[in-house]
Amino acid sequence: MTPSKPQKTPLTYDTEVSPEGSLEVLSQQEVNALKDTSASGLYEIWRSCALAVLNCGSHTDDSRAILEAHQKFHIEVKHQDKGIRLALKNAPAQAFVDGKMIRGIREHLFAVLRDIVYTHNEIRAPRFNLQDSEGITNSVFHILRNAGVLQPNTLPNMVVCWGGHSISRLEYEYTKDVGYHLGLRGLNICTGCGPGAMKGPMKGANVAHAKQRFTPARYLGISEPGIIAAESPNPIVNELVIMPDIEKRLEAFVRLGHGILVFPGGVGTAEEILYLLGILLHPANQDLPFPVIFTGPAASADYFQQIDTFLRTCLGDEACQRYRIIIQDPEEVARAMRQGIDEVTEFRRQHKDAFYFNWRLKIDPLFQQPFEATHANMARLALQQTRPKHLLAADLRRAFSGIVTGNVKEQGIRAIEHQGPFEICGSEDILTPLDQLLESFVKAQRMKLPGSQYSPCYRIKKA
Amino acid sequence: MTPSKPQKTPLTYDTEVSPEGSLEVLSQQEVNALKDTSASGLYEIWRSCALAVLNCGSHTDDSRAILEAHQKFHIEVKHQDKGIRLALKNAPAQAFVDGKMIRGIREHLFAVLRDIVYTHNEIRAPRFNLQDSEGITNSVFHILRNAGVLQPNTLPNMVVCWGGHSISRLEYEYTKDVGYHLGLRGLNICTGCGPGAMKGPMKGANVAHAKQRFTPARYLGISEPGIIAAESPNPIVNELVIMPDIEKRLEAFVRLGHGILVFPGGVGTAEEILYLLGILLHPANQDLPFPVIFTGPAASADYFQQIDTFLRTCLGDEACQRYRIIIQDPEEVARAMRQGIDEVTEFRRQHKDAFYFNWRLKIDPLFQQPFEATHANMARLALQQTRPKHLLAADLRRAFSGIVTGNVKEQGIRAIEHQGPFEICGSEDILTPLDQLLESFVKAQRMKLPGSQYSPCYRIKKA
Amino acid sequence: MTPSKPQKTPLTYDTEVSPEGSLEVLSQQEVNALKDTSASGLYEIWRSCALAVLNCGSHTDDSRAILEAHQKFHIEVKHQDKGIRLALKNAPAQAFVDGKMIRGIREHLFAVLRDIVYTHNEIRAPRFNLQDSEGITNSVFHILRNAGVLQPNTLPNMVVCWGGHSISRLEYEYTKDVGYHLGLRGLNICTGCGPGAMKGPMKGANVAHAKQRFTPARYLGISEPGIIAAESPNPIVNELVIMPDIEKRLEAFVRLGHGILVFPGGVGTAEEILYLLGILLHPANQDLPFPVIFTGPAASADYFQQIDTFLRTCLGDEACQRYRIIIQDPEEVARAMRQGIDEVTEFRRQHKDAFYFNWRLKIDPLFQQPFEATHANMARLALQQTRPKHLLAADLRRAFSGIVTGNVKEQGIRAIEHQGPFEICGSEDILTPLDQLLESFVKAQRMKLPGSQYSPCYRIKKA
Amino acid sequence: MTPSKPQKTPLTYDTEVSPEGSLEVLSQQEVNALKDTSASGLYEIWRSCALAVLNCGSHTDDSRAILEAHQKFHIEVKHQDKGIRLALKNAPAQAFVDGKMIRGIREHLFAVLRDIVYTHNEIRAPRFNLQDSEGITNSVFHILRNAGVLQPNTLPNMVVCWGGHSISRLEYEYTKDVGYHLGLRGLNICTGCGPGAMKGPMKGANVAHAKQRFTPARYLGISEPGIIAAESPNPIVNELVIMPDIEKRLEAFVRLGHGILVFPGGVGTAEEILYLLGILLHPANQDLPFPVIFTGPAASADYFQQIDTFLRTCLGDEACQRYRIIIQDPEEVARAMRQGIDEVTEFRRQHKDAFYFNWRLKIDPLFQQPFEATHANMARLALQQTRPKHLLAADLRRAFSGIVTGNVKEQGIRAIEHQGPFEICGSEDILTPLDQLLESFVKAQRMKLPGSQYSPCYRIKKA
Repeated sequence: MTPSKPQKTPLTYDTEVSPEGSLEVLSQQEVNALKDTSASGLYEIWRSCALAVLNCGSHTDDSRAILEAHQKFHIEVKHQDKGIRLALKNAPAQAFVDGKMIRGIREHLFAVLRDIVYTHNEIRAPRFNLQDSEGITNSVFHILRNAGVLQPNTLPNMVVCWGGHSISRLEYEYTKDVGYHLGLRGLNICTGCGPGAMKGPMKGANVAHAKQRFTPARYLGISEPGIIAAESPNPIVNELVIMPDIEKRLEAFVRLGHGILVFPGGVGTAEEILYLLGILLHPANQDLPFPVIFTGPAASADYFQQIDTFLRTCLGDEACQRYRIIIQDPEEVARAMRQGIDEVTEFRRQHKDAFYFNWRLKIDPLFQQPFEATHANMARLALQQTRPKHLLAADLRRAFSGIVTGNVKEQGIRAIEHQGPFEICGSEDILTPLDQLLESFVKAQRMKLPGSQYSPCYRIKKA
Repeated sequence: MTPSKPQKTPLTYDTEVSPEGSLEVLSQQEVNALKDTSASGLYEIWRSCALAVLNCGSHTDDSRAILEAHQKFHIEVKHQDKGIRLALKNAPAQAFVDGKMIRGIREHLFAVLRDIVYTHNEIRAPRFNLQDSEGITNSVFHILRNAGVLQPNTLPNMVVCWGGHSISRLEYEYTKDVGYHLGLRGLNICTGCGPGAMKGPMKGANVAHAKQRFTPARYLGISEPGIIAAESPNPIVNELVIMPDIEKRLEAFVRLGHGILVFPGGVGTAEEILYLLGILLHPANQDLPFPVIFTGPAASADYFQQIDTFLRTCLGDEACQRYRIIIQDPEEVARAMRQGIDEVTEFRRQHKDAFYFNWRLKIDPLFQQPFEATHANMARLALQQTRPKHLLAADLRRAFSGIVTGNVKEQGIRAIEHQGPFEICGSEDILTPLDQLLESFVKAQRMKLPGSQYSPCYRIKKA
Repeated sequence: MTPSKPQKTPLTYDTEVSPEGSLEVLSQQEVNALKDTSASGLYEIWRSCALAVLNCGSHTDDSRAILEAHQKFHIEVKHQDKGIRLALKNAPAQAFVDGKMIRGIREHLFAVLRDIVYTHNEIRAPRFNLQDSEGITNSVFHILRNAGVLQPNTLPNMVVCWGGHSISRLEYEYTKDVGYHLGLRGLNICTGCGPGAMKGPMKGANVAHAKQRFTPARYLGISEPGIIAAESPNPIVNELVIMPDIEKRLEAFVRLGHGILVFPGGVGTAEEILYLLGILLHPANQDLPFPVIFTGPAASADYFQQIDTFLRTCLGDEACQRYRIIIQDPEEVARAMRQGIDEVTEFRRQHKDAFYFNWRLKIDPLFQQPFEATHANMARLALQQTRPKHLLAADLRRAFSGIVTGNVKEQGIRAIEHQGPFEICGSEDILTPLDQLLESFVKAQRMKLPGSQYSPCYRIKKA
Repeated sequence: MTPSKPQKTPLTYDTEVSPEGSLEVLSQQEVNALKDTSASGLYEIWRSCALAVLNCGSHTDDSRAILEAHQKFHIEVKHQDKGIRLALKNAPAQAFVDGKMIRGIREHLFAVLRDIVYTHNEIRAPRFNLQDSEGITNSVFHILRNAGVLQPNTLPNMVVCWGGHSISRLEYEYTKDVGYHLGLRGLNICTGCGPGAMKGPMKGANVAHAKQRFTPARYLGISEPGIIAAESPNPIVNELVIMPDIEKRLEAFVRLGHGILVFPGGVGTAEEILYLLGILLHPANQDLPFPVIFTGPAASADYFQQIDTFLRTCLGDEACQRYRIIIQDPEEVARAMRQGIDEVTEFRRQHKDAFYFNWRLKIDPLFQQPFEATHANMARLALQQTRPKHLLAADLRRAFSGIVTGNVKEQGIRAIEHQGPFEICGSEDILTPLDQLLESFVKAQRMKLPGSQYSPCYRIKKA
C-alpha cells in the first residue's frame, strides 16, 4: 500500500457543530442571553465553560492559564431550520480527531449550554427561595431533573467516586481496577469529571460494562463553572451537569449517589469528606444507610491513616463509624459497595423514598449556603475544638474549599496574587493536625498537577 | 371449549397507575401543590382535566354534566421508590379494558399532570411577561418545549386538522379518508383532540402509517382545561398538551403546524378560521407560505359556500386568497397539502427558520390576550364593517369563542343559565350574514352533539 | 394558496427499491437462482409472487387474470455496495403513492424473496425427509424460524383469524370490531393475509394497538405461492411468510397460533375448519387446550348454523365440542379468546412446551402430505360416512381444497377450462349435506369476489 | 458502615442460563444432536467449545490441559416455555461475578451453540460442494450470514487485527493504543479473539468508542473449535463466530475485513501473513485495494525487520509492496488504515461490490482446502525456492499452521507426544531463513504463553 501523506495537526480549529443529546431547542430570548456579553449576559460564563470542555486532556489545572492561552477562542449559537448549531472559532485541537470534534465533547458542549441557560433563566427568586434550605434543595432537584439525570424506574446503582485529580500512576491504576469491579457488579460511576481519580473508575467500569453488556451505562460528571477549567470532563462522561456552585454540586453528589467511594486526593477530596461527614453527623441522618468507603493501593495506606487520625481528632469516633477503610482490595471494595447499596435499596423501598433523589437526607443550611472564598471570609472561620462537631465540620469544609479556590480557580488565583495567602485561624488542637495534613498533601504533590513548584495559597495562624 | 363466565362491567374502578411517558419525577413542592384543594392549589383543575381524559368516548359535550355525574371521582399523586403513582377512586369504566386502564389514557393522565404542574409553577411573572406579545409567545414556546413536542431534526410534516366535534357520519368518514391519504404521504396529524373531525383524520392516518411503517407517527392533541371535558382526547393521541387558555392553544396550533386543514364544523371551527385569517391578513405575514385548505364531502359543499361568502363579505377577497376549497377529493387534498408543506420547508430552509416553531409568524396582541366570555365582554364587541379588517376579524373571533363557551364550557353554561344569552352587537352588514351562518349551524346540528334540542346562548342585536 | 397541478396517475411504474426488514444479504448463487428462467430456476415463481404483492388492493381474485393483465411486469435482483436492490419494470400503480412504493409492500417483496430463496435452497432432501411427518414438521419449523416469526421470550398472544375473502360489508365491519377488542387485550393477529376476514381483524386491532401503545404489534400473514395472487397481502401485514403449499401453510397456522377464530367464509374457510377439527379429533390431542371460536354478526347466524349442522352430521358431536359459537358479541369473543389463550399459556408452562411453536400438537400425515387437486385425485376421494372420522375429515378437507384451487388458483382454473368440473364422489349421507353447504356458499356469494357469475368448478356425484 | 462478610469464591459453579442474543429457537432434532454423545453427535465438540468460552481469562494456552482440568464439566440444553436454557455443572468460576455468569460469556455460549448446530446440520454435501473453491466460499458466506455478522447498509469499517496471544506488556499496551486511535476514527475491530494482540485493540477501541458514542460498536471474534481453548474469547467480543477449521477462519477474516493490521506475534501470526500475501499475490487480486499494515512499538522494530527479510527472501519484492511497516506511531497507523479503507469503499462503490463480503477476492483452492497437520502431511511440504511463489506461500502457510497445531491444539500436542516433532523439509535457501525466524520466536517467548520452557514441536530438515 502507498503511505499516507504526513499530516500536520493544527493547534486550533474553526468549525460548526450540531447538537447531540438533550437541549436542541432554544427560544430566541435564550439565544440572545447567550450572546449577551454584558455583565448580566451569559456569554462569558458560557464561553469559559465551553473552552474548559474543549480543553479536555490538557495537562494543566490552572484555570487562568487556560483562559489566557485561548484568548482568541470564540463560540456562538446559531439558529437553523433543524434546530440550533454552535459556531466555534480557534477551538483547541485536542477536542478533534482528524479535524472532527469528538462526539462526547460535542455532547458536553450542549450539556453546558443546557445548564447555563436553565440555571440563569429559571433558578431565580421568587420562583426559588435560595435563602432557605428547602429552596436550595428544590433548585438542585430542578437542575438535575432538567438535565435528565433523575431517572425513575431504575434500581439504585450510582457510586460517587471522589479523589484527587493529581494522583500517582499507581493510584490511578488502582482507581481503574476498582471501577472495573464496580462495573462488573452493574454499578454506575459518578465523579467530579476531571482527570485522576475522577477518570480512572469510569475507564475501568467501561471495560466491565462492555463485558456485561450493561446498558445504558452511566458515567455521570458533576462540575461547576469555577472548577470545570481545572477539571475538564473527560469524554467518557456521558451525562454532564454543571451546578452553579460547589455547595450545590456537593448536594447533587449526596442526593444522587447511592454510595460514596473516596480515593486518595488532596484538599478537594478533604473538602468532600468533611462535607459528607458533617452531614451524616446530623442526628436526623443517624439511621440513614449510606455506604462510605475510603480505599487506595497498599502504597497509599498512610494517606488514609492520616485522614482517619485527623477526622478522629477533629470530629470524634462517631464520625469515623460512618466510613470503612479498605486497602488494596478492589474486589472487596466493589462487593462491600454493592452490599451497602442493596441496603439503601431496601431502606428506600420500605420508606417509599425515591431511588433517584435522596429527599430524606437532612442537610444543614451551613453546608448549603455558598461560601465565597475571600480573604475576609477565610479569616473569619473559627476552627475550634470547642465548637459543636457539625459547626466545626462546616468551617473545616470551608477552609478546604477556600484552598481549592486559591489553588485552581480563576478568581482565587487572582486574589492570592494580589493579596497574598489566605489566613486560616483557630485553636491549636485543630490547626496543628490540619497543618500536618496539608503539609503531607504538599509533599505528596497532591495540591496541584505535578510539574510545578507548589506555593501555598494559605497560612495557618494558630490563635 | 368451555364458555367464559359472563362478566358484568362495573361503572367505575378504583386503581393505581404508574407513569408512561414524560413526567415521572416530581418535586415534593409540586406534589403538594397538586394535593392542595384551596383556591390557589391545583387540585380542582387537575381533577377535572383528569376526569375529562378518563371520560373519553362518552357521548356528551356538556362539561358541567360530566363533572356532576362523577362527583365521587378522586385522584391523588403518591410517591414511591421508583417514582410517582396515581391513585384513582371511582374512575369512569370506559377508560378500562377488563379492569385495566387503556395505556393511551394512562399516558394522557400524566401529560395533563405535566402541563398543569409546569404552567402553574413556571409560567408566571416576572419570568414571563404575559402582558406583551413576545412574553406570551415565549410562554407558548416553553409549554410546548416542556411537553416535548418541539422536535428538531425532523422535516415539516405536521398537518393541523380543524373541524367540528359534532359532524355527520358521512363527514366523519370523509375526515378519515383524508387522514388516510395524508398518512400515506408521511404527514402527521394535530387536532384539538376530541371526537368528530378531531378524531377521524388520526384514525385514517393511523392505518396509512401502519402501511408505510411510518414511525414515530405523531397524533398530537392540543387542548385546554376549559374545553377538554367537552372534547375528551381519544386514546390514539400520543402527544397531548394542555395549554392554559384558548388563545395560547390557537397560537400553539399555528406555530407548530406546517399547514392547516379545515373540515366542516360549528362555531369552534368558525373561531379557528377567523383567528387564522385574522393573523394571515397581517401585512408582516403577507409573504409567508402557509397552506390552508377547506375540505368536505360533496354533501358539505354548501357549508363551505356559506363560510366563503361570509368571509368574503366580512374580510374581503384578500382573506379568501389564503385558502383553497377542495370538495370530495381526499387524494387531491393530501397532495396539495404535501406540496404546500414542501414550500414551507423550502422557505424555512432559505430563511434559516426553525422547522418546529414558526417564530416568524406575526400575531397581533389582539389575538393573544385571553378573552373572557362574560356578558359584559360579549356586549362590548364591535362588529362593524367600517373597522380595519384585522380588528374586525379579532372581534368576530371573540364572538364565536364566546358562543363556544356558552355552549359547552362549564362556567359559560352556568353564566347563560343565570343571565340569559349573550348579546352580540354590530352593524347590520356584518350581523346579518353572521346570523345566517349561525342559523345554518343550528339547522345542521353543528352546535352541540346531536340528541339534544339546541337553545342558543346568544342573541344577535343589530345596531 | 395556489392550487396544485392536477396529476394523472400512470398505470404502472418502473422503479428500484432497497430492502426493508429481514433478508438483505444474498449469496451470488442465490441471486443467480432467482434470475434463472429455466424450469429449475426460481424466476417464474418469484415474479408471480412479487406481482401478487404489488397488486394489493385490486378487485379480482382470479390469479390467471392478474398474471395475464401484467405480462410486461419484470423484476430483477441487483447487487450493490450496501446490499441488494430490486429493479422493477411495469409494476402496478396501486403499490405506489405519488410514485413511491408503499413501504409495507416493499417489505413484502423482500419477505417473498427470503422465503422463496430459503425454501428452494434449503428445504430439500436429504436434509429434510419430506415423506414423513416429523420431516415435514421440521421443514415448517425451519421456514418459520428463518422468517423470524418464532419469537421466544413472549407470552402466547397470537390469534389466527380465518374467514372468507369475499364477505359482506356488514361481516367485514364485524371482523374489524372483533379485531379491535382483541387488540385492546394485547392480542396479535395472524391471517391468510388477503382481503375480507383476513384484513378486517388487522385493521381493527391496529386502532386498538395504537390506543394501548402495544408494541411491537404483529400482523402476521401466512400465504403460499398458489393463493397469494388471489389473496394479496394487505400492507398492514408486517410479517409475511410464504409457505410452499397449503398443507404447510395450514400446519404453520395451527403450530404458531395460540387460538383460532373463524369468521364467515366460503370453501377456503371450510377447508380450514375441516383441517383443524380433523387434527383436534386425533386422540393424542384430546387434552390439549386450543381455543376455537366461530363468530359473526347476527345476520350471519344462519351460516354458522349450517356449518355446525354439517360438522355434526359428518364428524359427530365430539368434533363440535372443540369449538364455541358466539354471535354478535365482539367483546365476549375477545374475552373468551383471551381466557382460552391464558389456559394455553398455563398448559405450556406446566409442560415446558415452547410458547412459539406447538410441537406437541399431533398432526396425522394425511393432513400433511400435499394434495394435488387434479381431476383424478379429486375423483378418488372417498366421502363415506362409514370411514373413521379423521380419515373422512382428511378427505373432506381435500375436497374443499380442490374447490378453492378450481376457483382461484391459476393451474386449477386452467384445468377446469380444459377438463370441465371436478367430480366429487361419496355416499349420500355425506354428499347431500355437502351439496347443501356448497349451494348456500354460492347463494351467499361466498365462492368468489362479487361481481361475477359463479360457475361451479365441481360436480357432486352421489354414489 | 459495617464490613461485609469475607466471601470465599468457589472453584466452579452449577447454574442455568438463558440465551442472550441470536439463537434462541432450536428444533427438537437440533437439541437431540447436541445431546448425542456418540461419534456422530455434537456433544463433545459443543462441550469443549463451551468450556473454552467459560475458561476465559485463564493463564494457559494448552487445550489439553484445560480439558483435563475440567473433566467434571457438563453442559446440557433444556427446553422451556420461553425458549431454551443451558444447564451447566462444574463451570469454571472465572466466568462468574459473585456467582452470576458474566453476560458477555453467556452470549458466547449461545454463539458457539448457534454455529456448531448450523455448521453440523446445514454445511454439508450435497447442499455445499466442499471440494471446490466456490462451494467453500459459499459455505463461509452462509456461516457468517447465519451468525448475523454480514451487515448491509454500513460503510466499510472493519479492521482485522492479527498478532500473538503471547506478547510483552509493552507490545500489549501498544496494541491498546493503536486500537484506541482506530476507535476514535470510527473503526471496528475483528480478531481471533484470544488474549494479547487479539484483546488489546478491542480494549483500546472500547474506550475510544465510548468517547465517540460510537454505536453499535463491533468487537468481532472469529475462532475455530481446534484453537478456541487456547485462545478463549475475551468477553468484550460482542460478536463471536466459530468457523469449522482454520482455513475457513482465515477466509472469513479476509472476506469480512476491510483492512488488516499485523502486530508482533509468533507462528500463528506468521501463518496469517503467509496466507494473506499468498492470496494477494494472485494475479486476479493485483488491482484490489487491501490495506495491510505491520506495526509495533519501537522495541519490536527488529521483529518486523526479520519478518520483512524473510518475506523478501521467500516471496520477493512484489509481496512486500502489499504491506507497509509503521513503527511506534499509533496515530499514523490509524490514519493510514482509515485512508486505506476509504479507498476500499470507493473501489467497492465503483464496482458495485458488497461492502460486507469481499466476493471479488480470488482465493486459490490451495489456501482453502483444510490442511491436516499430521506427521506425514508435514513431511510432505515442499519448501523450495524454485516453486512458483504462490505455491511456496501455500506450503509455508501450512508449515506454520502445523507448528501452531503442535504447540497448542489438543490433537497436535497428543501427536507430538507420541511421534516426536514434525519434520519440515525443503531447500536450504528457504529453510535457513525459516529456521532463523522460528529461532527468534522461541527466544522472544512468542511460541507459547511465558512461564513454560518451550520444547519445539518441529525439526527443520534441510535437504
